[in-house]
Amino acid sequence: MPKKGNGKLRIIPLGGLNEIGKNMTVIEYENDMIVVDCGVSFPDDDMPGIDLVIPDITYLETNIEKLRGIVLTHGHEDHIGAIPYVLRTLNTPVYGTRLTLGIIENKLMEHKLPHVPDLRVVMAGDVIRLGAFTVEFIRTNHSIADACSLAIGTPLGTIVHTGDFKLDLTPIDGEPMDLARLGELGKKGVLLLMCESTNAERPGYTPSERNIGASLENIFTKYADKRIIIATFSSNVHRVQQIVDTSARHGRKVAVSGRSMLNIMGAAIQLGYMQVPDGVLIDMSDIKRFRPEELTLITTGSQGENMSGLHRMAFSDHSQVTLGPQDLVVLSASTIPGNEKLVGRVINELYHNGVTVLHDSIAEVHVSGHACQEELKLMQALTRPRYFMPVHGEYRHLHANAQLARDMGIEGSNIFISDIGKVLEIDRKGARFATATVPAGKVLVDGYGVGDVGNIVLRDRRHLAQDGLIVVVASVDMYGKQLLSGPDIVSRGFVYVRESEELMDQIRQIACDALLDDLEDGCVDRVDMKAHIRDDVSKFLYAKTKRKPMILPVIMNV
Amino acid sequence: MPKKGNGKLRIIPLGGLNEIGKNMTVIEYENDMIVVDCGVSFPDDDMPGIDLVIPDITYLETNIEKLRGIVLTHGHEDHIGAIPYVLRTLNTPVYGTRLTLGIIENKLMEHKLPHVPDLRVVMAGDVIRLGAFTVEFIRTNHSIADACSLAIGTPLGTIVHTGDFKLDLTPIDGEPMDLARLGELGKKGVLLLMCESTNAERPGYTPSERNIGASLENIFTKYADKRIIIATFSSNVHRVQQIVDTSARHGRKVAVSGRSMLNIMGAAIQLGYMQVPDGVLIDMSDIKRFRPEELTLITTGSQGENMSGLHRMAFSDHSQVTLGPQDLVVLSASTIPGNEKLVGRVINELYHNGVTVLHDSIAEVHVSGHACQEELKLMQALTRPRYFMPVHGEYRHLHANAQLARDMGIEGSNIFISDIGKVLEIDRKGARFATATVPAGKVLVDGYGVGDVGNIVLRDRRHLAQDGLIVVVASVDMYGKQLLSGPDIVSRGFVYVRESEELMDQIRQIACDALLDDLEDGCVDRVDMKAHIRDDVSKFLYAKTKRKPMILPVIMNV
Repeated sequence: MPKKGNGKLRIIPLGGLNEIGKNMTVIEYENDMIVVDCGVSFPDDDMPGIDLVIPDITYLETNIEKLRGIVLTHGHEDHIGAIPYVLRTLNTPVYGTRLTLGIIENKLMEHKLPHVPDLRVVMAGDVIRLGAFTVEFIRTNHSIADACSLAIGTPLGTIVHTGDFKLDLTPIDGEPMDLARLGELGKKGVLLLMCESTNAERPGYTPSERNIGASLENIFTKYADKRIIIATFSSNVHRVQQIVDTSARHGRKVAVSGRSMLNIMGAAIQLGYMQVPDGVLIDMSDIKRFRPEELTLITTGSQGENMSGLHRMAFSDHSQVTLGPQDLVVLSASTIPGNEKLVGRVINELYHNGVTVLHDSIAEVHVSGHACQEELKLMQALTRPRYFMPVHGEYRHLHANAQLARDMGIEGSNIFISDIGKVLEIDRKGARFATATVPAGKVLVDGYGVGDVGNIVLRDRRHLAQDGLIVVVASVDMYGKQLLSGPDIVSRGFVYVRESEELMDQIRQIACDALLDDLEDGCVDRVDMKAHIRDDVSKFLYAKTKRKPMILPVIMNV
Repeated sequence: MPKKGNGKLRIIPLGGLNEIGKNMTVIEYENDMIVVDCGVSFPDDDMPGIDLVIPDITYLETNIEKLRGIVLTHGHEDHIGAIPYVLRTLNTPVYGTRLTLGIIENKLMEHKLPHVPDLRVVMAGDVIRLGAFTVEFIRTNHSIADACSLAIGTPLGTIVHTGDFKLDLTPIDGEPMDLARLGELGKKGVLLLMCESTNAERPGYTPSERNIGASLENIFTKYADKRIIIATFSSNVHRVQQIVDTSARHGRKVAVSGRSMLNIMGAAIQLGYMQVPDGVLIDMSDIKRFRPEELTLITTGSQGENMSGLHRMAFSDHSQVTLGPQDLVVLSASTIPGNEKLVGRVINELYHNGVTVLHDSIAEVHVSGHACQEELKLMQALTRPRYFMPVHGEYRHLHANAQLARDMGIEGSNIFISDIGKVLEIDRKGARFATATVPAGKVLVDGYGVGDVGNIVLRDRRHLAQDGLIVVVASVDMYGKQLLSGPDIVSRGFVYVRESEELMDQIRQIACDALLDDLEDGCVDRVDMKAHIRDDVSKFLYAKTKRKPMILPVIMNV
């Protein structure tokens, strides 16, 4: 199948494999390179204080002259969130559909870039040329509007990158995935299928987004006497559209809460992705003018986030809305792993206030945006790829997707479970992993800092969080070999100092003994003196409390 | 229904309501008081460094002369884990079944108590007298052997406390819940039912533990050519029994890994709760003598815990076992909310090493130990209580259980959703919440410290974890109004210092300016000087980095 090209095609994931999020893949052929997606991921529990995680783009920076552009599949954070950071050092064109770029423009307003970003709108069906590559955007369905799969033409054949997708034959915007085009590509021959793996462990099909419409209809009928508050992902334009439509049909006004919900709805309406009948949308400050049963409130907070609209409503911290027995709250979302406790706290508080609550474990109020096993197999059946690489997911998901490929008859030797920084090489002779890898990893964003917090800083943060810290300060005359002042003990996060004066005295005494010993022995090396204090205090505290606070000795030479 | 008593019966939960775990309830009548269960809970994410959480027992300590004893329903940590801490200050008899007390004896070996604990074994069916109360232990089923519900006779009528239970008509030890006795009590009249709520949101019935036996049989048949490693809760004696039995039937030897698994299996075999056919159990060090398909390994680590047997095996850190393509790992447990990521990491690593993995979302390898809605309703139908109090669960669970009671025809005014420290009073006139509450809350255990870490210490730990710390140290001559040495800057968990020398210099300069300003102005108040440094450095860093590290100024007067 490899076509005319004599060179080497290299597929290099920089994110999104063996992890959830920060999706980014480099596709390289000789002197040309394009990047598919540019996402962030969210910090794990072992990264305290970190706001975001972005991919390490060293490889792009060192090959900047080859880079022809970034192509985006859709506007979710895990596919576009790193754009503002990456564009700081890489001034390259960014291609995406209208909604995708609309969301990025919104984001870029909060970032200062050294240059005007070169954002180029494409439409599903468009084909662009980028150096040795062509990129065709193919309509697909996902939990955000305007999502595309990509057919990337290379000198060695076509790569299909699915992006995130599901097969929705009755999508809300009336445009199902372009199955015919995928089939056509398959017929002509697909060199490599890169297929998302999020739901690869789940059998069957993901239901259509339209099911939620039917479910909402039932809920609005059953709870006609209540004010209805629905929390969902702000980027799920079609979900919001269905809530608006159902509300309009039931004669309800709709008010919106939460900054990201207002932002994205604004962009979606402006760009024509959402139609709101006249007079339905009202301002949150006008809700007093209507009876509860005449209102629907759409809000952020489906993940229980602290500052979100729903959280503020639940904990009586919202300026316009207090929830009570007249209210029905619908959590129209699944709980992202790791957020269970946050969501649980909100649900408990809602019940506590007498609110009726519907969530996805007791009603059909959410469907996934990702393909389940049968859909993943359908994607393979349409594209009939020579090589297969599962992408987007932890190893378990990649493994499950690879298993589906084997079930579909792709030989094990043509299936490549890759990793970030790993290079799949394809040439006329075949495909194989290269022995050399490229730099790849996690770059941590903390406040304005990008990459200035690494493993050492995180290790210290975790240590400080576990057992707190004890600072031992003393002033010493190194020449006279005299202790001039201190040692003073300052402690934070260790014990409640006011109730532990005896312990503090003991620490001071031990530190003092260590210092005087050293001075008597003629030691004037501050590093040695500090180590001595650290060891003695540390040993004492572990024996006494079974804790290991960080000990920070500071010795001043006066 | 209230009987002859003229006094007041008081029901006071000290733990287990609006939270998961640390179950403990005080039942009080005039000058007598008993305690049902004495559990721990595990720290939330916002309690870094904390090992365990136990109930606040101030109310028991101040009423020690009334306390007649502690009665235990079963041997799980959330029902007995606080015993070693509570017995330090409360020398009172502890009543429980043999396995329950056996587990406690094991625990107490690691704790020094000021007195010999007074542990008194009872059997299901026994009735003991404790002051004004009688306590009858009633056989029930749960995911640990020897679990009991309690019928507590009081001068005002009978309280039934279910403990944790499920209805298992085919339990592994052949003794189902004593339905007849519960029905008899109901017929005579039950004043109050206190019923566990863990699965109150789940419809239907919990399947019998015996289903797992059938499932294991299939798995052992299908994977006859593999070594089988099964991770489960060490306290689930019946589960372990079924694994042993299935292994014996298939001619496999069984070896055991993990300290708690070895401990509890040892106790269970010794006390007769587990029967192991001769020659089946072998030492882990002897597994080399058998082929993989002749072996079953039972291990801890079903929650992905770092030091557990399964974790060490998965990450090639176990001295005797390395896992690979010849192995099948069965996670015979559900993932406790909050542990999803830990478990996910182990599953990913197992797949990575070519291991076949079965877990409860892809095979029937676990059943819950708690009653679902139909069983909860059955408990109510049998006991026919006048008053109902849902216990054991977050508000959402208590709320769902209360809803079941309403569905069963109990009037809303006779249903009491209580809270820790809240007092339900029952007398001849009826039942109501008292206006006064008793002290209740969380006492944090950190190393040897019990209660010495409170909100202030935790707040500091969280602050340190978020953005780290900067210590500013200077030596000053307060009389001469001179800066003698410093300021020196020490930082941890903030930025990587070696790459941030310029920033450190700026901090030093700002602190120095603040100090010199103060000295020039004649300020000799160290509190003021420290506040000045803190404000200036803090403002500078937030503007520069958008972070708020803890600033700790130390000024030594030499």
